[in-house]
Parts: sequence; structure tokens; C-alpha cells
Amino acid sequence: MADKIRVGIAGFGTVGTGVAKIILENADAIEARSGVRVELARVVDLDTTTKRAVDLPDGMLTDDMNAMLDDDSIDIGVELIGGTDFARELQLKMLGKGKHVVTANKALLAKHGGELYAAAHKNNKCIAFEASCAGGIPIVSAIRTGLAANNIRAIYGILNGTCNYILTSMTSDGVDFSDVLKDAQDKGYAEADPTLDINGGDTAHKLVILGSLAFGRQIEMDDIYIEGIEKIELDDIKYGNEMGYVLKLLAIGEKGKNGKLSLRVHPAFLSKDNPLSRVDGSFNAVSIFGDAVGNTMYYGRGAGMMPTASAVVADIIEVAMGNSSNLFNAQTVESRAETVASLESMDNVVSRYYIRLLAKDVPGTVARYAQILGDNGISISGVLQHEEHNVGTSVGVIVTTHPAEESKINAALKTIKELNVIDGEPVCIRIVDIPEDDLDD
Amino acid sequence: MADKIRVGIAGFGTVGTGVAKIILENADAIEARSGVRVELARVVDLDTTTKRAVDLPDGMLTDDMNAMLDDDSIDIGVELIGGTDFARELQLKMLGKGKHVVTANKALLAKHGGELYAAAHKNNKCIAFEASCAGGIPIVSAIRTGLAANNIRAIYGILNGTCNYILTSMTSDGVDFSDVLKDAQDKGYAEADPTLDINGGDTAHKLVILGSLAFGRQIEMDDIYIEGIEKIELDDIKYGNEMGYVLKLLAIGEKGKNGKLSLRVHPAFLSKDNPLSRVDGSFNAVSIFGDAVGNTMYYGRGAGMMPTASAVVADIIEVAMGNSSNLFNAQTVESRAETVASLESMDNVVSRYYIRLLAKDVPGTVARYAQILGDNGISISGVLQHEEHNVGTSVGVIVTTHPAEESKINAALKTIKELNVIDGEPVCIRIVDIPEDDLDD
Repeated sequence: MADKIRVGIAGFGTVGTGVAKIILENADAIEARSGVRVELARVVDLDTTTKRAVDLPDGMLTDDMNAMLDDDSIDIGVELIGGTDFARELQLKMLGKGKHVVTANKALLAKHGGELYAAAHKNNKCIAFEASCAGGIPIVSAIRTGLAANNIRAIYGILNGTCNYILTSMTSDGVDFSDVLKDAQDKGYAEADPTLDINGGDTAHKLVILGSLAFGRQIEMDDIYIEGIEKIELDDIKYGNEMGYVLKLLAIGEKGKNGKLSLRVHPAFLSKDNPLSRVDGSFNAVSIFGDAVGNTMYYGRGAGMMPTASAVVADIIEVAMGNSSNLFNAQTVESRAETVASLESMDNVVSRYYIRLLAKDVPGTVARYAQILGDNGISISGVLQHEEHNVGTSVGVIVTTHPAEESKINAALKTIKELNVIDGEPVCIRIVDIPEDDLDD
Repeated sequence: MADKIRVGIAGFGTVGTGVAKIILENADAIEARSGVRVELARVVDLDTTTKRAVDLPDGMLTDDMNAMLDDDSIDIGVELIGGTDFARELQLKMLGKGKHVVTANKALLAKHGGELYAAAHKNNKCIAFEASCAGGIPIVSAIRTGLAANNIRAIYGILNGTCNYILTSMTSDGVDFSDVLKDAQDKGYAEADPTLDINGGDTAHKLVILGSLAFGRQIEMDDIYIEGIEKIELDDIKYGNEMGYVLKLLAIGEKGKNGKLSLRVHPAFLSKDNPLSRVDGSFNAVSIFGDAVGNTMYYGRGAGMMPTASAVVADIIEVAMGNSSNLFNAQTVESRAETVASLESMDNVVSRYYIRLLAKDVPGTVARYAQILGDNGISISGVLQHEEHNVGTSVGVIVTTHPAEESKINAALKTIKELNVIDGEPVCIRIVDIPEDDLDD
């Protein structure tokens, strides 16, 4: 275990500023707790002039990456540049120069994790990535150490703060998706280009990382079924609420009784009784079910300068203590072939469903769509149709179902939308009943 | 890092059975994840005949403790006997014989932690105690590693499953304290002698352990203000509910702006909006506020065979990997003198308060107690008095206050209860407003 560790930061943006701030301000507290003196040695950014929320010692900031790479006294390279091309090259160079890597770059790890981990092993270094998932929540550590005695059965996560902020605002303020998004961008909560957040891609990146650790399989983006929140309409959030549900963008990893792994990211109605339904605004939360521990849940800020920096510096400390290398070297994942063979087809995934139809208010309409659901083996769990006194107009009808397979609901919807008493495209949102763990109280 | 670690378990009760079960059943999964082969070498218990929920290999169970202590091939002694006398001797012997100790014994660590940690350091071994607090929730690990970059500002914990089960049942089923307790005992959720649970002592033991880690101070039981739930009346739970509050037994550790540390365990009304208010039944949860990370929350089963065993085995794995020793050796706590000097007096602690008075329904009563609160500098936040049509009888009046110091509320209550328009003893329960963290959204 090193008594002193020297750190170079690549990327002096929001998180980089937070990391520098913690190292410069909390070094004494960190040393008292960990026995390690963390020293900031170098900060690299193309922009060396913009004023940041921390004062670096003179001469520490440079735009020359080699000033960090070639400095053999620097033990850890912190990659906070983002993106997947330059950052990949940079991490490979850091490892090649004998530095451990600490990173928050989920997109890079989701895309090139296999290559980077191999390079780290080859150089006898480690890559630490607590900050890549759920910001300041120590969820990577929880899976790797706290729950290490468990076979993990399932993960349910709210992993994107932008989406959760948007859905929470839609729910509590009754504002349309596009208006909330614009507001969030104005306030700086959402990126100028929020595509990767709202289309579920960012959430899926995190599911690749957490799922690989939890299930011990090499997971890739292609293994995950992904739907975003772009098409969510305010009406559905309101109707869902009326029926006792809250809409969240959920990352789901479930190992079925048949041993198959289902990985998916999609909007999901959760019962108001589930703790995840109460995770509001930009907060993140993850429920993890282990065979021994039952249900555990972790909650906190999933993004932001200081929460993410908290996770980066936690990794720096763990690398300095040698614990990160122990964990990194120990972790084995099953082969890609085994993962692919074990994936559950989306057709076989069982959910309950919320279906909104725009039905012509004429005799026999209810009977017709109910008949089609029944013909496909789908039972109706609830119906909500507000009274409409203008006979002959189209009315919104909400149907919720008992559990059914995706293939069945898709077949039913295909037939229903061809009915001449149904206007437009039916809306279908999955209702996810997160189970109780099966342990005794 | 050891490739193989041999474990001896002292105490083959509920948790010991769970630990043996995980080691025997999940050894392959653990090895795949950690690179460590965990081997069960010996189980010791006075009762070698009762059938347990796991089958041990022939000859492994013995009533002779020396069979474990004298076996130099055993690297870790797991102390699951409980109590503070024999267990203390046993842990000292284990350490003296060159074994690491893994334990769930919160009472022992709260009482003799200092002595035991010193003995471990002297023998160059570690004591690991994830299972001592909040069962399967990896909260010790979260404070030590995940949040290591933070100055911890506050901890708020629901740490006793028996109390939480009782309060939840009182709240949802409207059953009296004594009836719920009897029911819990009949079902085996509560001990035959539940004193240490319901008087807050067990919760305080856990606050000693978590507070020492979080605040880096040596804390003892005497440093904690403790009130239990024995005197809680159903009426107060109902009235509190009506006003938007849920009653929990809360462990609180707060570092004030003046640097002083307030440590307390008492019943507390929490707003229904706070996630901790939704922790029901035998579940535990802990909110930890760090200066960088903001508010994080951890939730799960705080007791039970497999959840607690999950934490014990996590510790065994971390000891085998060498990470536990790294953390144990690194941790320094400030001296006892510094802790004592930094403790906040209970008189200065600021809360809001729920006060229930039994007031004679005569003219001027409200004015008289309101005047006394005002005279003591206490503002009234809300009043609840249900209409009573039998003029002249005594009626329950609930008053909630704005924040005030304990000393002021105590002075006011002393005067109020001497009023001849007040019957009996006023009921006073603290309302704890767990703050938002002050980070940006």
C-alpha cells in the first residue's frame, strides 16, 4: 500500500474541477481515514484560461497531455474528457505508461471496456470506474464487495438524472415533455444535445457496466433492449397516476428461473408503493436483489460536480490502498459466447401493460378490443374510461393487463389497431412489478 | 492476497447457519468473483445435536472451542456467539492465535471496541464488522470506501428492525404497542427479552460503530442520548399521521456548524415526504450526508439469517483479499478527549416538537399554554384539536412547534404541566426535519 499517490487529471470541466477541489481541500481528512496522501500533480485541458471554481497551484494546469503521460511520478491518470475515440487512445496511453486509470466515462467502458480491461491487465494496472454509474452512489463498490457473497438475481435502476428530472416535472407540474426538456436545458440540467439521455442510451451504458459486474458476464450494448422517453405523453403520466403508478425510465437486469438474462431499458410504470417510484428529480437509485441479502436499495445524486467527484476520489483512494487492483485482478467474467447464449428474447419477457386506446364511442367497442386481448391469452386487470357525454366522439380508454408475454401483447396490439373503432396508434407502456424478495420478515 | 482462506465459525445459531450455508453453496461463485476459495474448516457450538438448515460435512461441528483456536490452518475466526463477556475473551484469543476476526457483535464492539481494535493491531490482524450494523446493507463499506473522499456531515438511521416492525404495525394496523410486541414475539420477530431493542440500546450500539467511522472519533455509549419506544402511544402515531408525519426510532449523528457532534437515539416524527419515512416493517435504512456527495441513502434487510450472513461472508472475502487489513490499518480515530470536547449538549440540540396536551375544555386554555410557549421563545407551527361537543370535558390538543432548543421546550413543558387546565403529563415527541443537502440539482 502506497503512503502517497500522485494524480493527474485529464479534463478540467465540471467533474475535473470537483476532483481537484476535493484533493486540494480534503487531503488531510482523506489521509486520516485512509493513511494515503493524495497529491494533485497535473491538470490537463485544452482550455487553460477559463476561470474554474477551484484555484490550482501555479503551473499545474497545462494543455500538453504529454506533461502528464511522460511524468513517471504520476501514479494515476484520471480520464474525464468523455467521448469514445480520443478518450480510448488516452486511457491506452496512460496504461502503457504504467499509470492506473480512474474514469467516469460510461460510454467508453460500455463500448471498449473489453479492450481497455485487457490492456490494463497486460500492464499490471487497474481501471477504476465507480463514477461511471450513478454518480456519487457507491454502487460499483456495493456490487463488488458488499454483496460479493450473493448470486445477484436482479437489478432495477433509475440511472439517468436528466430523464428522471423530466419525468418528475411532467408528473408533478403537469408540463409537456418538450417544455420540460427546454426548461431543463435552459437551467443547465440537460445537455444541449440530450439525445443520449432521453433515448435511453446513457442508461444502457450504465447497465452494461453494472450488469457485467452483477451477473459476471461480458455484456455489450447490442444485448440490451432500449426504448427512451421521447414519445411519452403527459396524458399517460396522468392516467397512470390515477391508477396508482409513477412513470420512470428503468434499467432492468433480471436472471430468470430458466437461468436466462433479460437486459432492458424502457419507460416503466412502477407502483406508488415501490421505493423507486419516490426517487424524484435528478436523483438516481438502484435496487439490487441478491439470493442471500434479499432486496437492497441505494439512493443519491447521480450526477453533478461534487457527487461525481466524490466517486472519482473514492476510486483514487482505493487504488492507492491497493484494494482496486485486488478487485480488478480478481474479477472474471464469463465469455461473450456464454452471455449471448444466456440472453432471454424480448418476445418472452413477461410484464403487465398499460394500454391507451382512442376508441370510438359506439356500441360494442369495449367488447371488440377485450375480445382480442382474450384471444391472445391476455387478462384485463383494470379499465379506466372517463364518462364522455358527447355520444359518437372518440374517447381515451385505459386498459391494464395481468402479466403476459411481449409477443402476445404485440400480436394483440397489431390486431386492435386495425379495428375500425380505434383511432390512431395505441399507446403501450410496460408496468413493472418489482417483486418482494422471498426472504422471511 | 490469499488464494484460499480457511474459516472457523463460533456460534451455530441463526446467522452461523446462514454463513455456513453461503460458504458451502456459493463457494464457486465467490471464487469466480474474488479469486478466493473460501473453505469452511470448523463450526463450534455447545449444542451439537439440534438439526440446522444446513448439512455440515461429518466431524466439522464440535463443542470444543480449542479445536478452532488451536488449528493454525484456520485464518479467520467468525464470532457469532453474542454477548459481551465470553465473546470478548474469545475474540482476544482468536487474535492472540493469529486469526483475523469477523463479527456481527455490535454490543461487544460498542462496549469493548477500543480494547479489541488495539489487540488486533498488536497482533497484526484485523477485525471486520460489516454485519454488526444494518444486517445485509453494506453500510460500513459505504462509509469507509465509497464515501471516503467526503467529510461526513450527518447520519440518520433506522437501525433496529424490531422497533421498526412495531412502529409500522402500530401505524398501519392501529394496534397498541404491547399487542404488537406480543405478536412479534409470538412470530419470532422480536426476542423473548426485547429490552435492548425497544429501549434504543441496540440502535445506540450501531450508532457508536457507524459514528466512529463516519466522524473519525472514538465514540462510547455514554456519548449518546437515548430514548426508546416503550412509552409510545397509539394516539400519537395517529395524530402525527394526520399532520403528515410518520414515527420512527431514529439514530442521529450530526456535526453542527460549530463543529460539535450531536449523537442521539430517540423516536422521531419524519415528514411523509422523506424517503426514510417509507422504510417499513423489519427493513433498515441509513441516510448519510457528505460534503461532496450530498445525500445518499442505503436500504435493505437489517437482520435475519441470510442477510446478516451475506455481510459476514462479504467480510470474509475482503479479509481474504487483504482489503480489510488495508482499511483496518489505515483507519485512525481522534482521541477520546477530543470526542468528549466536541460533543454537543442535548440542551442545545434544535428540533421541532410535537406536543400533546390533555386540556380542560374551558375558556382561556389555549391562550395559557400558547402564552407559555411564546414566553420561552417557541413559535407554534400547527395546532390540531378535534371538535368536542361535551363542554367541560378534557380534550387532546396537539401543538407542533417551529425549531427550538431542547432547553427551551423542557422549560416550557415544566410550566405547562403545572397549569391547572392541563391534565396529566404532556407528551412530547421530536419532529426531525432531515435537511435537503445543499448541492445544486
